Amino acid sequence: MTTLKTKLKVAMIGQGFMGRAHSNAFLQVGRFFDSGHELRRKVICGRDRSKLETMAAQWEWEETATDWTSVIQRKDVDVVDICTPNRWHAPMAIAAAQAGKIVLCEKPLAMNLEEAQTMAAATRNVPNLVWFNYRRVPAVSLAKRLVDDGRLGNICHYRATYLQSWGPDPSRTGAWRFDPSQAGSGAMGDLLTHSLDLALWLNGSITEVSSLIQTFASGRQVDDAILLLARFANGSIATFEATRYATGCRNRNSFEIHGSKGAVRFNLEDLNRLEFFDASDPLPVQGSHNVLATGPGHPYTGHFWPPGHIIGYEHTFIATLADFLECLGKPEQFHPNFDDAVEVHRVLQAAEQSAQNRSWAAVPAASERAAVF
Amino acid sequence: MTTLKTKLKVAMIGQGFMGRAHSNAFLQVGRFFDSGHELRRKVICGRDRSKLETMAAQWEWEETATDWTSVIQRKDVDVVDICTPNRWHAPMAIAAAQAGKIVLCEKPLAMNLEEAQTMAAATRNVPNLVWFNYRRVPAVSLAKRLVDDGRLGNICHYRATYLQSWGPDPSRTGAWRFDPSQAGSGAMGDLLTHSLDLALWLNGSITEVSSLIQTFASGRQVDDAILLLARFANGSIATFEATRYATGCRNRNSFEIHGSKGAVRFNLEDLNRLEFFDASDPLPVQGSHNVLATGPGHPYTGHFWPPGHIIGYEHTFIATLADFLECLGKPEQFHPNFDDAVEVHRVLQAAEQSAQNRSWAAVPAASERAAVF
Amino acid sequence: MTTLKTKLKVAMIGQGFMGRAHSNAFLQVGRFFDSGHELRRKVICGRDRSKLETMAAQWEWEETATDWTSVIQRKDVDVVDICTPNRWHAPMAIAAAQAGKIVLCEKPLAMNLEEAQTMAAATRNVPNLVWFNYRRVPAVSLAKRLVDDGRLGNICHYRATYLQSWGPDPSRTGAWRFDPSQAGSGAMGDLLTHSLDLALWLNGSITEVSSLIQTFASGRQVDDAILLLARFANGSIATFEATRYATGCRNRNSFEIHGSKGAVRFNLEDLNRLEFFDASDPLPVQGSHNVLATGPGHPYTGHFWPPGHIIGYEHTFIATLADFLECLGKPEQFHPNFDDAVEVHRVLQAAEQSAQNRSWAAVPAASERAAVF
Amino acid sequence: MTTLKTKLKVAMIGQGFMGRAHSNAFLQVGRFFDSGHELRRKVICGRDRSKLETMAAQWEWEETATDWTSVIQRKDVDVVDICTPNRWHAPMAIAAAQAGKIVLCEKPLAMNLEEAQTMAAATRNVPNLVWFNYRRVPAVSLAKRLVDDGRLGNICHYRATYLQSWGPDPSRTGAWRFDPSQAGSGAMGDLLTHSLDLALWLNGSITEVSSLIQTFASGRQVDDAILLLARFANGSIATFEATRYATGCRNRNSFEIHGSKGAVRFNLEDLNRLEFFDASDPLPVQGSHNVLATGPGHPYTGHFWPPGHIIGYEHTFIATLADFLECLGKPEQFHPNFDDAVEVHRVLQAAEQSAQNRSWAAVPAASERAAVF
Repeated sequence: MTTLKTKLKVAMIGQGFMGRAHSNAFLQVGRFFDSGHELRRKVICGRDRSKLETMAAQWEWEETATDWTSVIQRKDVDVVDICTPNRWHAPMAIAAAQAGKIVLCEKPLAMNLEEAQTMAAATRNVPNLVWFNYRRVPAVSLAKRLVDDGRLGNICHYRATYLQSWGPDPSRTGAWRFDPSQAGSGAMGDLLTHSLDLALWLNGSITEVSSLIQTFASGRQVDDAILLLARFANGSIATFEATRYATGCRNRNSFEIHGSKGAVRFNLEDLNRLEFFDASDPLPVQGSHNVLATGPGHPYTGHFWPPGHIIGYEHTFIATLADFLECLGKPEQFHPNFDDAVEVHRVLQAAEQSAQNRSWAAVPAASERAAVF
Repeated sequence: MTTLKTKLKVAMIGQGFMGRAHSNAFLQVGRFFDSGHELRRKVICGRDRSKLETMAAQWEWEETATDWTSVIQRKDVDVVDICTPNRWHAPMAIAAAQAGKIVLCEKPLAMNLEEAQTMAAATRNVPNLVWFNYRRVPAVSLAKRLVDDGRLGNICHYRATYLQSWGPDPSRTGAWRFDPSQAGSGAMGDLLTHSLDLALWLNGSITEVSSLIQTFASGRQVDDAILLLARFANGSIATFEATRYATGCRNRNSFEIHGSKGAVRFNLEDLNRLEFFDASDPLPVQGSHNVLATGPGHPYTGHFWPPGHIIGYEHTFIATLADFLECLGKPEQFHPNFDDAVEVHRVLQAAEQSAQNRSWAAVPAASERAAVF
Repeated sequence: MTTLKTKLKVAMIGQGFMGRAHSNAFLQVGRFFDSGHELRRKVICGRDRSKLETMAAQWEWEETATDWTSVIQRKDVDVVDICTPNRWHAPMAIAAAQAGKIVLCEKPLAMNLEEAQTMAAATRNVPNLVWFNYRRVPAVSLAKRLVDDGRLGNICHYRATYLQSWGPDPSRTGAWRFDPSQAGSGAMGDLLTHSLDLALWLNGSITEVSSLIQTFASGRQVDDAILLLARFANGSIATFEATRYATGCRNRNSFEIHGSKGAVRFNLEDLNRLEFFDASDPLPVQGSHNVLATGPGHPYTGHFWPPGHIIGYEHTFIATLADFLECLGKPEQFHPNFDDAVEVHRVLQAAEQSAQNRSWAAVPAASERAAVF
Repeated sequence: MTTLKTKLKVAMIGQGFMGRAHSNAFLQVGRFFDSGHELRRKVICGRDRSKLETMAAQWEWEETATDWTSVIQRKDVDVVDICTPNRWHAPMAIAAAQAGKIVLCEKPLAMNLEEAQTMAAATRNVPNLVWFNYRRVPAVSLAKRLVDDGRLGNICHYRATYLQSWGPDPSRTGAWRFDPSQAGSGAMGDLLTHSLDLALWLNGSITEVSSLIQTFASGRQVDDAILLLARFANGSIATFEATRYATGCRNRNSFEIHGSKGAVRFNLEDLNRLEFFDASDPLPVQGSHNVLATGPGHPYTGHFWPPGHIIGYEHTFIATLADFLECLGKPEQFHPNFDDAVEVHRVLQAAEQSAQNRSWAAVPAASERAAVF
């Protein structure tokens, strides 16, 4: 029953929170999904040698390394996974692609649009992935399916927030996520990109935005919060908000979509649920269906536990990786890939322009985009 | 367009919390419903003269009185409404019925089953009502409609709680509701009767019960809490709980019903909502419908405000009274009436027997009941 | 105990949904509050004579009239209450003020800022009120108290939505609320003004806005939806959204405020609740307090029913009126009054400018405002 | 930094849903916890050879076997983990204990109380565990801590439900869980035992019960549902309900505890949350704290992901195993162990007696228990 599996040897660069989440995905994907590929955790690469050994032991990486440039060149590495601070994404991804590796990269893909475009161009010939993992939350995939099946009708409104509350925490101040040379931006790259990736996937392209970018902490050089108005190509209109200053919200990545026939509502802090309003229900029993998206009939859930047994944050990485492996060697492209992340950066750039000019900024349309390269 | 209305002159006996709620219903029923009857707030009767005048002024009662026996005999009184402590219900209701008055009485109807039966027998020839007002919560009436329409299928489980938290409050200790000679019982008469009336209405007769009756406060002579297991004639099984010791719960009168085709859930603290699970929804979108029962298509709501504008506690008295007036002079009987309240007392008596004997106690069946009279 | 009350004779102009809500407030305010003023429902004035008699009978108005100009001049009228379509607000309010009457007016106060300013100037010497009734929701007043007591600390984020879903309903198309000559605007005047009044009250002045105004229905001449980014004078930033196209939302007037020490969240569809996050709670038990704001210790609730017995939509009008009567003849001004409503219109005007210019628009500051007159 | 770890070789008997959950725990415990023990997944033993290989490959068990008796005797096995149908628990656990192995066993421990007692006696000298995994839900452990810290005061009420909905599903009829010779009981052993273990842990011993045991499906030989009233030694009173016929409920394992100073509420379908009502909060802001128990300051969460990143069902097995390994070789006993499970069976037996006798049944007290052995 078990077929011979292709072995893929992975090098992961990074050893922080994301390093753990990725390690877990590499470890677990074969437990829950049967992809025809076996992943070997070959080498973990990081700068803090003292912690690196512990982490390698804990997650069973075969080797450790501190020089990413040589790791990327290794013949016995097939996949390079990048989960470093943002500023290293571009050099690493480009080097890995040039070495012919499969490239996986954390979000935000790049420090800016131009860099993202260069990265996308460089990886055009290797399989690639950007870890916008929330597309693979079962409840989010269910939302996508409902949208695609026309269950929401024509979309009028999209509303997304990504609310966290650690911005004011002085113990975090030194973290690389507050350093513009490491992170590129603050809430914008860290949080808004997740919301934008979901929005672009669920609701199509954004044509123009008006934004407000705010830093609350005095002396801080990255944004603490960003607000956005947006128009989508499908005629719907939207608000976006991403902030690290939403006291009481740990990880409220939420969206809500209203269409002519229905509506959906999602919140990452309660990620096993999707609220679905169906305007075709008879009037007296109309009301948002409170769907526990743990199966039966929900995306991915058959791979995990029986209905009613909820999954956690980490499973979204596992499902993302499973889908990526499923696409390997097939003609269809995996999404979200580097090109998809470029679209996110395009909106970010328009947001920055808008904030600077205090006016609406257009997001270049598809044809104009082609001209960029 | 306005037809000539029958005038009904009301005498209300009682001047407490319920006196206010009833006064409001008499005042408001004609604003929201067109029943063909006009109610005049003729006389309010109570023992505390100092407060009586204020209350009469506030709610525009034409007269005040302190002697209930003479009030009941007045020729210019058509309706006697009783909202005194429980021990007065029987003598007042019986006297009023004998005087040929329409009789409205607060719950619990009586101090015990025997008294309730006597009262029911005495009022057989006059229109009568017991203020189990929660049947007329729009969301509860919607639940009833769903049950009657078979949307829940065969019922398996019924689960009710009535949770309050003022039992431990020493400032309340002197209240008549803690005095067995005034109240008859504690949580049982005050809270459980509401749950039982709803259960009997929504789910049919109860055939047997096992109970636990508890007094937490030392020296107190009424029950603080009662737990019940029950079997219904339709084959379903149930738990009931009523208590004044549920810290944090102000007025959680809730029920939940599971049937072969669906389920409903209600909570009085959020009385404009009904959760309805429909097992005929397609699997991927199955989930309790969160119904805001403020119309369109919901019972009573057309009489109040437009959809989305919630109603409060007091509206349940208004709707109860409206339905009662609607039945006046028609062949169909209004419910809940004294006979319905006898059924509630029948279960209470079985519960007391069960607690005393530490074993299940049967609730007499319909035929046995006939023999009682 | 009852003191001699001043009698105030009311003329109400308007006979629709708001006419009912106001009638109820005039009827009920004396039942729940003791203000020293007695209101007589003297005359109801409207154009549809056939329905006017029914409504007068139902709500016990002493007289009916169809000519508002003469009603306003009546000597036996002390209070003029205006609940007509918006275009009549200005001429009626100005005439009433010139006749020395107390003036109560529905929101939005005016068709535009200029008109609002003229109205405010005209009513400077008579007591006046604008029916922004949601300030008096107990849970909203509790939020205000928490803000004023510093329990939220320095405010960073304000987020408001007013979501309804009747925009697409073809049966409503003919309603005056879709006619620009009657309503002035759509969702903007009808919904956003409520959100703005609450925001200005809870969070202080707005200094600048960026907006998007949208009409979804082809051929419609009023806005169906409006989105707003805003900066407040206190340094906080905000999103606002008001729409009639939010499928599944009946009346979701919600706001959320995040400060350095806490946060609050409110939703009109569940108006008896306030969520309050207190950052001073010990970490392990930090979480939004789910407060059922029905007392004890909550604004207004002592006037209605005991704790746990919820109130409805209409009570907000009663409490507004009670506070207004309380201020009559005292030095302190009642709020929200015509001047407060001017502030709302000022933001609306800036929003319209912003939408037109596709850029941020400043809301004139206090000193500039003085110069306007 | 990594210390030398003791290697423990595990044999797991069983290959179903629980086999997967346990395999995952053995695989993952070392990733998230540092216990000083390394677990080797030595051999998986099951009857269905065709599926066994796949499962062994998927979860990286080194060997497979089909004869459990010889597996238990293997010298190179240190730990025997039993996740077979219930009827095999006793013979396997006893044989494993006699062979000196560490014994881990799924719940319900036994087919009946007598068997459970025999098993407990047999394992007295080997480390043992029963997989009542829900004690280690962080939110549940937080509840335990609040109870132990006296934050709830004296407990008055305990209320537990375990509601599932697969009883009526004909496709499940053949499953071993409906076969009395394999399962011993239905909802009672499968669901109620979880609720009872939590209750005994959180609220102490149960002294007596009254129960109702129900089979809805005609011809079925195990119970579909059980209802229980109970008295605890601490004076509190309780209802329990476990059923497979709760339409719409996938896995609603919930409990609620009301004490003199506070209350808690938990529901497994939303396992990252605990509601905590604190009666010492000032009145105006009293309301259940909606605690997202993902840290900081919550049990176990520091081992998984950062605050706000929820965990899933499977993590409860991981944390259980981690605590068990932590106790190995130390004087303190791990809980829940076989003795704890005996207490659960004691209540089950009393429940069966109660149902049979239609009266309350005592649960033998501690001293009487000692005499049993």
